[in-house]
Amino acid sequence: MIYLDNAATTKPDEECIKRAEEFLHNSYFNPSALYAEGYNIQLSLRRAKTGILSTISMSDDFDLIFTSCGTEADNQAIFCGGKRGNIVTTYGEHSAVFAAAKELSTRGVEVRFAPLNSDGSADIEKLIELVDDKTSLVSVIHVNNETGAINDIASIAACIKRKNPRTLFHSDGVQAYGKIPFMLTKDIDLYSVSAHKIGGVKGCGALFKKRNLALKPYIYGGGQEQGLRSGTENVFGIKNFEFAAVKKYCKIEENHKKIRLLNDLLWERLDKSLFTRISPENNSPYILTVGADGLRGETIMHEADDAGLILGTGSACSSNEKKRRSRVILACGISESLADGILRISFSSENTVEETESAAEILNRIVKNRKEKMA
Amino acid sequence: MIYLDNAATTKPDEECIKRAEEFLHNSYFNPSALYAEGYNIQLSLRRAKTGILSTISMSDDFDLIFTSCGTEADNQAIFCGGKRGNIVTTYGEHSAVFAAAKELSTRGVEVRFAPLNSDGSADIEKLIELVDDKTSLVSVIHVNNETGAINDIASIAACIKRKNPRTLFHSDGVQAYGKIPFMLTKDIDLYSVSAHKIGGVKGCGALFKKRNLALKPYIYGGGQEQGLRSGTENVFGIKNFEFAAVKKYCKIEENHKKIRLLNDLLWERLDKSLFTRISPENNSPYILTVGADGLRGETIMHEADDAGLILGTGSACSSNEKKRRSRVILACGISESLADGILRISFSSENTVEETESAAEILNRIVKNRKEKMA
Repeated sequence: MIYLDNAATTKPDEECIKRAEEFLHNSYFNPSALYAEGYNIQLSLRRAKTGILSTISMSDDFDLIFTSCGTEADNQAIFCGGKRGNIVTTYGEHSAVFAAAKELSTRGVEVRFAPLNSDGSADIEKLIELVDDKTSLVSVIHVNNETGAINDIASIAACIKRKNPRTLFHSDGVQAYGKIPFMLTKDIDLYSVSAHKIGGVKGCGALFKKRNLALKPYIYGGGQEQGLRSGTENVFGIKNFEFAAVKKYCKIEENHKKIRLLNDLLWERLDKSLFTRISPENNSPYILTVGADGLRGETIMHEADDAGLILGTGSACSSNEKKRRSRVILACGISESLADGILRISFSSENTVEETESAAEILNRIVKNRKEKMA
Repeated sequence: MIYLDNAATTKPDEECIKRAEEFLHNSYFNPSALYAEGYNIQLSLRRAKTGILSTISMSDDFDLIFTSCGTEADNQAIFCGGKRGNIVTTYGEHSAVFAAAKELSTRGVEVRFAPLNSDGSADIEKLIELVDDKTSLVSVIHVNNETGAINDIASIAACIKRKNPRTLFHSDGVQAYGKIPFMLTKDIDLYSVSAHKIGGVKGCGALFKKRNLALKPYIYGGGQEQGLRSGTENVFGIKNFEFAAVKKYCKIEENHKKIRLLNDLLWERLDKSLFTRISPENNSPYILTVGADGLRGETIMHEADDAGLILGTGSACSSNEKKRRSRVILACGISESLADGILRISFSSENTVEETESAAEILNRIVKNRKEKMA
C-alpha cells in the first residue's frame, strides 16, 4: 500500500509510541496529584512543553497550551482572541477556523473574509485592507490544507501590526508545523498545531501563544494548563507529541528537501494532458493538488485505493451538490467541472521515490482509462 | 505500592490497551477519509458508540458525543444547554461544571447554586425550589467526587421535569459511570463521563445526550460527531474507552459488592479516635473520605506516599489559605480545622483486602504519631 494522504493524518511513528508507552503502563498518575508520582508526571509535561517550544521559538517569548486537537486550538484562538468590533480571516481557512468564525459572527462580532488567489493563498493586499481600528483578531492559515499554498504569515503579521498594533494575529499552522522550516516571530500571537499530522497520535494538539498575552480559557474546570485549558492532561498523547515534534525538527531541512524532490517528481511524471495543477509552484512540498477536469475526484480515489494507492480528494463526501465541491477550491476561482475532479496527494518523510513513481503511474492509468471511456 | 487514588485516575487496563493498540499501529487512517481504510475506522467508531451506549441505556433514546475528557463534556452541557433566564446547579459540583457555570454567569445567564447536606449530597428540596419557568438547565453531580455522596439523579430529574418540562437535566457522571449500577432515565437529557476513571486512557470522554435533543456544538470545524464535536477523533482513546467500559459493565454488580466490602473494611479498621467520617453511610463504595482534625491532609498524604500508600486529599495544592481548603468540603458545613485534614481514599476493582488492611494500618500509624507529637 502506498499511503499519500498524510495531510489527513500520518501513520504514528513507532519509535515515539514506544517511548511514550511508559505513560500508559506505569506513569499513569494524575499530573495534578500532589504526591511524588503525580508531580513527576507534571514535570514530564513541563519537559514536553519546553521540548515542543524549542522547535518553533528560540526566544522565551512563547508558551503553549496543550489541547485535544488542532481544531480545539483554532477554536480557542477564534473564540477567545476575537472579541467586539470585527475579526478578519480568509476564504482559505480550514473549517476549524472557518466554522468557528461563522459561529462568532452570530454572536455580535463582524467577520470579514479576504479573497484567495487562484492557488489558494490569501490575497494579502485585500486582507490588509479589511483590517481597521476595530479589528481584534486576524487569522490566516499558514499552509493551505487543500492546495499546499504557503502564506507568508511573518510578513502578513508584521503588516497587520503596523496598521493596528492592538490586533492579535493567529495562524493555523497544522499543515506547516514540523514540515516547513519556520520560527514564530514577534508579530505572531497565536499558532495552532496538531500532533497526528507529524507522526504523533490523534487526540493532541497545541496552541502556541505569546507568553504575555492574556487569553481566556475555552474549557473551564480544574485549572490545568495554568488555568488556560482544564481537564486531565492526555499525558500519553502529549509525551508522544513531544517525541514526534522533536524528531521531526531534527530533520526538518533534510526532510523538506527530500519531499520537495518527491513532489516535483510526482508532478513531472503526471500526464499534463490529463491533470491540471492547482498547487502553486512554490507550494509546501508536502502537498500536491491537481484536478482531472470532467471527472469525479472521489471516483478516481476509490479506483486508486483498489490499486493500492491512498490519496485524498478536495471534496467532502456528500450527495448534496452544493457541499460536494470544496468551498476553498471554489474560492480559488476554479471551475465547477475542475473542482469536481480534485485530488490531493500529500507526503510524509516516510515516502519514497519508488512510491511516488508508482503513484504517478497509477493515476495516469486510471484517469487515461476514464477519459477514454468518456470519449 | 498501594494505589488508592482511583477517583483521580485509574491505572489503564492492560488488556484494553492491547486491544486498542491496533488503532495506533495499523488502523491509523483518518475516520473522515472516504476510502475503504478510512471508512472502516469510521465503522469502528460507530461500534464503540453502540457498545458504550449499551452500558447505560437499554432504549434507543440516547446518543453520545465523544469528547476529549469529562471536563469538555461538562462544558458542552453547561455552555450549550444553559441559555437565557437561569440555570440551577449545586455547591457540590466538580470544577468542570462549577467553573463553567461561573463563566456562564458573566454572559447574562443567572446561575443559582443549591446548598449541600453535610455529606456533600445536594439539598434536593432547596434545589427544586430554585427551579422556575425561566430555568433552562439543571446540573447535579451524580457521585460527589470529594465525599462519594450519591445524588438520586433519576428522582431529582423527574421532580424538575414535573416543575418545568422544558428544563434540561444534566449530570456529571464521571465518578458514577462504570461503578454505580445505573441506567439513564427519560428525564435525564445529558450525562458526562470520562474514560480514565474506569481503566481507560486519559484524553477521552463522552457526553450522553437524548437523541432528539438539539444541542449546539462546543467545538466547531470539520463536522465530526454529526457536527456536534469537530476535530479528528482520538480513535485509540475511543476504542480503548469502549473496551474499558464494556469490561467494567460486565462485572459492575460484582465489583460494586466487592468494593463495598473494601470500603466498609477500611472504615472499620480506621481508628475512630483519629478520623472523622465525611462520606455518608450510603456513599459510593469507590470513595471513602475522612478527616483528621487539626492535621494537614497534604502532610499525611506525603507521609503515606513515603510508606507506599497513595491517596488523595480534599484540598488543592496552594499556599493561598483561601484556596487550600476545598470549597465543596466547606460547603458541607465542615469546620476549617477538619477541612484542613481531609483524606480521600478511592478504590478500583483491582484493589484487594490486603491492600485495604495495610492502608488502614499506615494511616492509623501516621496520624497517631502526628497527634502524639502535637500533644
